[in-house]
Amino acid sequence: MEGFGGLGRRLRLGMVGGGAGSFIGSSHRMAARLDDRYELVAGALSSNAERAKSSAADLGIAPERAYTDYAEMVRAEAAREDGIEVVAIITPNDLHYGPAVAFLDTGVHVICDKPLTHTMEDAIDLVGRVRRSGLVFALTHAYAGYALVRHARELACGGELGEVRLVQVEYPQQSWVDLTEEAASPRDAWRRDPARSGAGGCIADIGTHAQHLASFVTGLRLSEVCADISTFVPGGQLDDNNNILLRFDNGARGMLWASKLATGYANPLRLRVFGTKAGIEWNQEVPGELAFMPHRQPPRKILAGNADLSAAAQRVTRLKPGHPEGVIEAFANIYTEVADVISARILGREPDPLAFSFATVEDGALGMKFVEAALESSAKGSVWTDATLDL
Amino acid sequence: MEGFGGLGRRLRLGMVGGGAGSFIGSSHRMAARLDDRYELVAGALSSNAERAKSSAADLGIAPERAYTDYAEMVRAEAAREDGIEVVAIITPNDLHYGPAVAFLDTGVHVICDKPLTHTMEDAIDLVGRVRRSGLVFALTHAYAGYALVRHARELACGGELGEVRLVQVEYPQQSWVDLTEEAASPRDAWRRDPARSGAGGCIADIGTHAQHLASFVTGLRLSEVCADISTFVPGGQLDDNNNILLRFDNGARGMLWASKLATGYANPLRLRVFGTKAGIEWNQEVPGELAFMPHRQPPRKILAGNADLSAAAQRVTRLKPGHPEGVIEAFANIYTEVADVISARILGREPDPLAFSFATVEDGALGMKFVEAALESSAKGSVWTDATLDL
Amino acid sequence: MEGFGGLGRRLRLGMVGGGAGSFIGSSHRMAARLDDRYELVAGALSSNAERAKSSAADLGIAPERAYTDYAEMVRAEAAREDGIEVVAIITPNDLHYGPAVAFLDTGVHVICDKPLTHTMEDAIDLVGRVRRSGLVFALTHAYAGYALVRHARELACGGELGEVRLVQVEYPQQSWVDLTEEAASPRDAWRRDPARSGAGGCIADIGTHAQHLASFVTGLRLSEVCADISTFVPGGQLDDNNNILLRFDNGARGMLWASKLATGYANPLRLRVFGTKAGIEWNQEVPGELAFMPHRQPPRKILAGNADLSAAAQRVTRLKPGHPEGVIEAFANIYTEVADVISARILGREPDPLAFSFATVEDGALGMKFVEAALESSAKGSVWTDATLDL
Amino acid sequence: MEGFGGLGRRLRLGMVGGGAGSFIGSSHRMAARLDDRYELVAGALSSNAERAKSSAADLGIAPERAYTDYAEMVRAEAAREDGIEVVAIITPNDLHYGPAVAFLDTGVHVICDKPLTHTMEDAIDLVGRVRRSGLVFALTHAYAGYALVRHARELACGGELGEVRLVQVEYPQQSWVDLTEEAASPRDAWRRDPARSGAGGCIADIGTHAQHLASFVTGLRLSEVCADISTFVPGGQLDDNNNILLRFDNGARGMLWASKLATGYANPLRLRVFGTKAGIEWNQEVPGELAFMPHRQPPRKILAGNADLSAAAQRVTRLKPGHPEGVIEAFANIYTEVADVISARILGREPDPLAFSFATVEDGALGMKFVEAALESSAKGSVWTDATLDL
Repeated sequence: MEGFGGLGRRLRLGMVGGGAGSFIGSSHRMAARLDDRYELVAGALSSNAERAKSSAADLGIAPERAYTDYAEMVRAEAAREDGIEVVAIITPNDLHYGPAVAFLDTGVHVICDKPLTHTMEDAIDLVGRVRRSGLVFALTHAYAGYALVRHARELACGGELGEVRLVQVEYPQQSWVDLTEEAASPRDAWRRDPARSGAGGCIADIGTHAQHLASFVTGLRLSEVCADISTFVPGGQLDDNNNILLRFDNGARGMLWASKLATGYANPLRLRVFGTKAGIEWNQEVPGELAFMPHRQPPRKILAGNADLSAAAQRVTRLKPGHPEGVIEAFANIYTEVADVISARILGREPDPLAFSFATVEDGALGMKFVEAALESSAKGSVWTDATLDL
Repeated sequence: MEGFGGLGRRLRLGMVGGGAGSFIGSSHRMAARLDDRYELVAGALSSNAERAKSSAADLGIAPERAYTDYAEMVRAEAAREDGIEVVAIITPNDLHYGPAVAFLDTGVHVICDKPLTHTMEDAIDLVGRVRRSGLVFALTHAYAGYALVRHARELACGGELGEVRLVQVEYPQQSWVDLTEEAASPRDAWRRDPARSGAGGCIADIGTHAQHLASFVTGLRLSEVCADISTFVPGGQLDDNNNILLRFDNGARGMLWASKLATGYANPLRLRVFGTKAGIEWNQEVPGELAFMPHRQPPRKILAGNADLSAAAQRVTRLKPGHPEGVIEAFANIYTEVADVISARILGREPDPLAFSFATVEDGALGMKFVEAALESSAKGSVWTDATLDL
Repeated sequence: MEGFGGLGRRLRLGMVGGGAGSFIGSSHRMAARLDDRYELVAGALSSNAERAKSSAADLGIAPERAYTDYAEMVRAEAAREDGIEVVAIITPNDLHYGPAVAFLDTGVHVICDKPLTHTMEDAIDLVGRVRRSGLVFALTHAYAGYALVRHARELACGGELGEVRLVQVEYPQQSWVDLTEEAASPRDAWRRDPARSGAGGCIADIGTHAQHLASFVTGLRLSEVCADISTFVPGGQLDDNNNILLRFDNGARGMLWASKLATGYANPLRLRVFGTKAGIEWNQEVPGELAFMPHRQPPRKILAGNADLSAAAQRVTRLKPGHPEGVIEAFANIYTEVADVISARILGREPDPLAFSFATVEDGALGMKFVEAALESSAKGSVWTDATLDL
Repeated sequence: MEGFGGLGRRLRLGMVGGGAGSFIGSSHRMAARLDDRYELVAGALSSNAERAKSSAADLGIAPERAYTDYAEMVRAEAAREDGIEVVAIITPNDLHYGPAVAFLDTGVHVICDKPLTHTMEDAIDLVGRVRRSGLVFALTHAYAGYALVRHARELACGGELGEVRLVQVEYPQQSWVDLTEEAASPRDAWRRDPARSGAGGCIADIGTHAQHLASFVTGLRLSEVCADISTFVPGGQLDDNNNILLRFDNGARGMLWASKLATGYANPLRLRVFGTKAGIEWNQEVPGELAFMPHRQPPRKILAGNADLSAAAQRVTRLKPGHPEGVIEAFANIYTEVADVISARILGREPDPLAFSFATVEDGALGMKFVEAALESSAKGSVWTDATLDL
C-alpha cells in the first residue's frame, strides 16, 4: 500500500484540532503517515495559541501555517498556491460542522471525526453540501478499516452466511464507571457535556461505531429501534448505557449494547451476524481473528494476512499472517483510501471501487438518525421508532 | 460430597419419562448416580410399554416396578413400604403438572424438568400445592449448579461487584436453524409444538435458563421486560428468537438474548454482570473459568477447584483446579442438594442452608411469568410489561 | 453408554486404597458409578482400620467385606461365591505390584493407578503375569479417555495429518513450587518419597501421562530420549522438572516438558502434533475443544459431541455439543470400556474392538521404561538413551 | 512519542535493500515513519538497477540519491553535507557485515536486520568495530519492542516472579512445510541457502528471535545448549526444526523450539517464564495481553495501554487499553529509541536510559553464538555445548 499512488508526491494535509497530548490527534497523524501518502503542512491544532504553535513546530509545520483559528486557516490556505488539499477535523462534536463547511467551500476534501455533527439538522445540511461540492468526505469509523471487517462484509454481502437473520453488536467500555477518577482527565469532559457532544453521550461517542459496523458488514439498513437508554452515573447529563433492540430492512432483528459502565472492559467492540447458512464473530480487541461458523460444522478461525482472503481484505493488508496489525493500521486504511480516491481524480483516473469503503457523509447522517431515533424511543418509553433517513 | 450423607443408605428414586435413548433421561440418571445418594428403584420411563419395560430392565429396576403410566406408579409405590421417596419428572412440559401433583399428594418429593409447567395457571397452583405439602420440589436449572456460578453469586450478592447496574445474559443455540435437518430427530419435535410445549418455544426451553441464571447470580428480580420475539423458521408455530430488554428491582438494566437460530453456536449460555466496583463474566461452555474484572485492574481468571473459593463453591466441587467438571457434575449438584435436604429431614436435623441452592417451585413460577410477560410485551409491539409475581 | 451392557447386572468391584478423603479414590468411584456398570462391594480402603471401616460403611460396603489388608481381601473374596470380579488398585506406587499379582492369581481383573509399578523389574514381571492370566489389566491414564483425545488419535493414525513430523507434549503444574505450603497436605507426601514413589518423582507422576498421551494419539513409539532432569526445590529427593527431547520410531522428533514448578499452572496437559498435511492441538483444561489446523487453511475448532466425529469419539460421548464433559467422564470411559470387555467375555461374545482403548500393562511398562531411560539420560549428562522395550 | 524529540527536524535515513515488494522493507519504512523521527532520503534499495530507481522514486527519494550499490552510496552520502545520519540494512544475512562496516567507517549509525551476520567471525569483528566507532548499532529484534514485552522484562528483572527457574520459549511457523508451494515465492529462497543465510536456516531466521526474547525478558544469559536439529523437508540444505534444551547462568533451565514445520501455525512466538513467586506468559500473536500468574492466585490478564504499567512499557505505548498496537508499532519502537539516542547525542544531552532497550551488536553476537553452539551440539549428537561469549 506504500508509495505515492502514482501521484509522484504526497497529498498536502491540514489538521483542525488534535494538538499535543491529544490521543485522537496523534492517532490521526500516525494513520496519515503510515503509508506515506500525506504531508502535514498546516494546522489549527489548538484554540490555545501557545499550544497550537508548539505542537505545529514539533510536527514540522512551518510557523506561518500554524493557525489558532480554523477560519483563518481556511482563508490563508485558500490563498496559497500550495494550500492544503485535504483537512482532518479532530474536534469536539460541536466543531465539526463549521470547519467542514468552510473547507468544502474552498475545495478542500474533508476527513472528519465521528459522530458527524452536533445536531441532526447540521447533518442533513452537510450531506447536501458535500454532494454539491463533489469533494471527498470521509468519516473516521476507523474500526471498519480493519482487514477482517472488510472480509466479514464480503462474506455477509456475498451470501456466505445465507440470509442474515440476527445481528448482535456491542460496544462496552468502563470509561465512565467512576467519574471522580475521570475528573482527573478533563480533556475528555466535553464528551459528557450536551453543549459540546450533542444530545447523545455514550450513544453518540461509541454507539454510532457499533451501529455503523453492523450496517457496514451486513449491508443492511436499520429500519427501526426500540431503546432503553440510561444515565446511571450521579450528575451525568448524558446517557451512559444503551440497551437497544434493532430491526433491519430485510427483516433481520438485532440487539445493540453501548455502554460506558461495563466495569473491567477496555474496548471490545464486538459484532456477531447469523444467517441461514453460517454465523460470524469479530472482536476489535483481537482484530486479526474472524470466526466463521458454518451451520453444524467446526468453527473456523480466519486469520488476517492469509493469501486466500477476499480482495477487499487483501487490499488493506500490509503484513503476513501472525504479524498483528492494530487500530493504527485500520485507521491508516481510511486515510489511504481517501488518498487513493483523491489521487485518482488528480490523475484523471477512475478510482479503484474498493477504495470507496470508508464511511461517507451519508453514513454519518444515518448515524445521527440512529442517535435521534434511539433517544426518542427511550424518551417515549421504549417504543419502536423509525430510524430510516431519505437522503 | 460422596457417601450416604449420614443416612446409612441411598434414597429411593423413581422416574417418570426419560426412557432408553433419551438424552435428558440419561443425564438425570448420571446426575443421580454420581455422588451415590440415590437408588433408582421404579419408573414409568416411557408411554411405550415395550420401551418402558426394556429400559427399566437395563437400569436394574425390578420388573414389577416398571410402570407404563405415572398414575399407576403413584398408586403402586404409595402402597409399598419401600416405595419411592423422590420422583424425577422428565417429560414434555404438558406432563409436568399432573405427575407432580399426584406424587406430592402421596408424600413424594419432586425433582422436575424446566420450565415448570405448561400454563401460568398450573404454575401458580403448583406453588400452593408444594407449599402446603411441605415437601421438597426442585426444578432442574442445572446450569445454576456449577461451582463457579455459585461463586459468582457469592461475589454479586456479597457486594464484591458494588451496586449491580448492568446484566447481560444470552443463550444462543443453532438447533432450529434448519428444521429440515431436525425432522430426522422427531424426539425433540414436542419442543416446537404449542400443545406440548406451551405458549413459549425457545423462550420456554432455554430463555428460562438465562432468566433464572441472571436472577440467581445477582439476587435481583425482574421487574419488567420489553421484548421483540420472532419466529423466523418457515412453518414454525413457536418463537425461535428472543431479543428482550430487562429491568430489575434495584434499578439495574439488562438484555436477554435467547435464540435457536445462532448458526454455529452449540450451547454458550453466557452471563455478564457489571457493578460499580467490578464486572464478572461466565460462559457455560468453559464452566471452570470465571472472569472477575475489578474496575481499572487486570481481569482475573478464577478457576474452579481453587482452595480459596467461597464455601458455596467449594461445597459443590469434587476435584482440584485444572480437573474439569462438566454439566453432569453441575446437574449432580442439584440432585445431591436435594438429597442433603431430604436426608437431614429424615435424620431430624437442620439442613445445611447452602443446600437450598437449587431452583424452587417459586423460581419456576417466576420463569413462567417471564415467558408470559415477554410474549405479551412482544405481542403488544414491545411495550414494557410487568414481570413480577406475588407468591 | 448407560445400562448393564447386556449382562443383566452390575460387575462386582473391589477397591484397594482410596478411603475417605482421598481425591483419587472418590474419582475412581465416581468413574465407576457414572455409567452404572459396577457395584462396589468390597474394599481394603485404608491401612488405618478405623478409616477403612467407616469409609466402607458410608459407601454401602457390607461390614464383613471391609478389609484392612489387601491380602486378607484377596483370600476372603476368592472364597465367596459372589466375590469381586474386578479390583481397583489406588495406592502409592510401591503398593501396585503386590495387590495386582495377588488378585490376578485369584482370577480377578485389575484396574490400576499409574505409574505401573515401583521398579522396572516389577513392571516387566507384571506384564508376563497379566499375559499368562488372560485377565483384563487397565492402567488409569484417564486423560486418554476424553472423547476428543480419541478423535485426535483417529485423525493422527488415520492419515489426516499426513506423515507426523513433530510432537510437542507438556504437563506443567505448580504443585511443588513451594513445599512449605505442601507440608500442610501430608496425604501427597509419598509422591516425593523415593521409597514410595520409585526413582521418578514428577516424571513418574505426570511425565508418564504426557508420554502415554503422545504415543496414544500418534500411534508412535518412543525410540530414544535425551533428558535434562532437575530437582530445584530445596530438600527435594526426587525430580521436580523434566526437559526432555524425544525421538519416535517413524523419525518424528519431539519435546516433553513435565514440571511441578510451573507457577500459576493448574493442570494443562497439552499435546500438539504436526504432520505434513495438518497439525492438531489439545489441552486437557479445555477438553471439549480440539484444534485441527490444515496446512495454510483456517484452523478449525472441533467440538466434543458433534454428530460427525469419529466412531471412536462418539462411543465415549454422553452429551450433545456445548454440554461439557469433564475428567470424571473421561475416567468413566476407562471403567466402562473395562466393563465392556469383561461383560463381553462373560457373555461369550467378542468385545467391540474400540473398547480396547484403555492403557494396558504393556503401556504401563513402556511408561516405566520412559522414566528409567530419561533418568539415565540425565544422569549421564543428557545423552540419547534407548527408550524401547521388547515385550 | 510523536514529534522531533527536541531536534527540530527528522533524522536523515538511508536504506540498503528492501525495495518495492519487499515485505521486510516496507515494514522498516512504516516503522521509521510512524513516529515521524526519520526522513528517508537515500537508498540502495535493490541490486536490480531498474527496481532500485523506481522504488526510490515512489518513496520520494531524489533520483541522485537512488543508488544501486551500497559502496557507491557510502561514498556519495559521505561526500554530501546533508548525507544520511542512519542507515537501515535490510538484506540477506551475507550482506549485513559489508555495508555495516562501510557505513560505520563513515560515521553513519546502523539499524541492521537479524541475525547479525553470516559468520561468527564477522559477528565478533563487528562488535569491535561498533565499539570503536562510538556509533549506535541496533539489531531489529522487533518483537522485543512490544510494550508488554518491556513490561514482562520489568516484572522478571524486578523480582516480581521471584527467582526464575524455568524458561519455555517457542517460535513455530508453517512456512516450510511444503516447499513446492514455496517455490512460487523465490523472494525468500535465500533463507534456505547456506551461501546466503549462513550455517543456520530456521534457527538463524527465527530461533534467534526466540533466544533473544528469552534473554531480554529474563535478563539471564544462556550458559549452554543441548540441541536436536533436523532437516525434514526433502532437499533442504538447512535446518527446519530445532528442539533445544537450555541452561541459563543463574541455574534456570529451559526449552526452545523453533520450527518452520508447525503445520497450521502462522507466527506464534511465545515465551513463558516461571519463578518461585509467579509465572508469566506472552504470545506475539495476541501482543496486547500478558498473563501474570502469581502462585496459587487467579491469573491476571495485563492489558497493554493500562495506566499502571511500568514506565518501560508506557514509554513505548501510543494508545489506550483495548486499542490494539501491532508489530509495526513494536518495530517503530526500535526505530524511535534509536532516534532518541542519536537525537540526544546531537543535542549534547544524556539519552533516557530506557531508550537503550533495542538489541545491540553484542546481542547479535550472542545470537550468532547461540546458533553456532546449537548446531555444534546437534552435530555431536546432542551434547551440552557452551553458548557463552566473552565480549
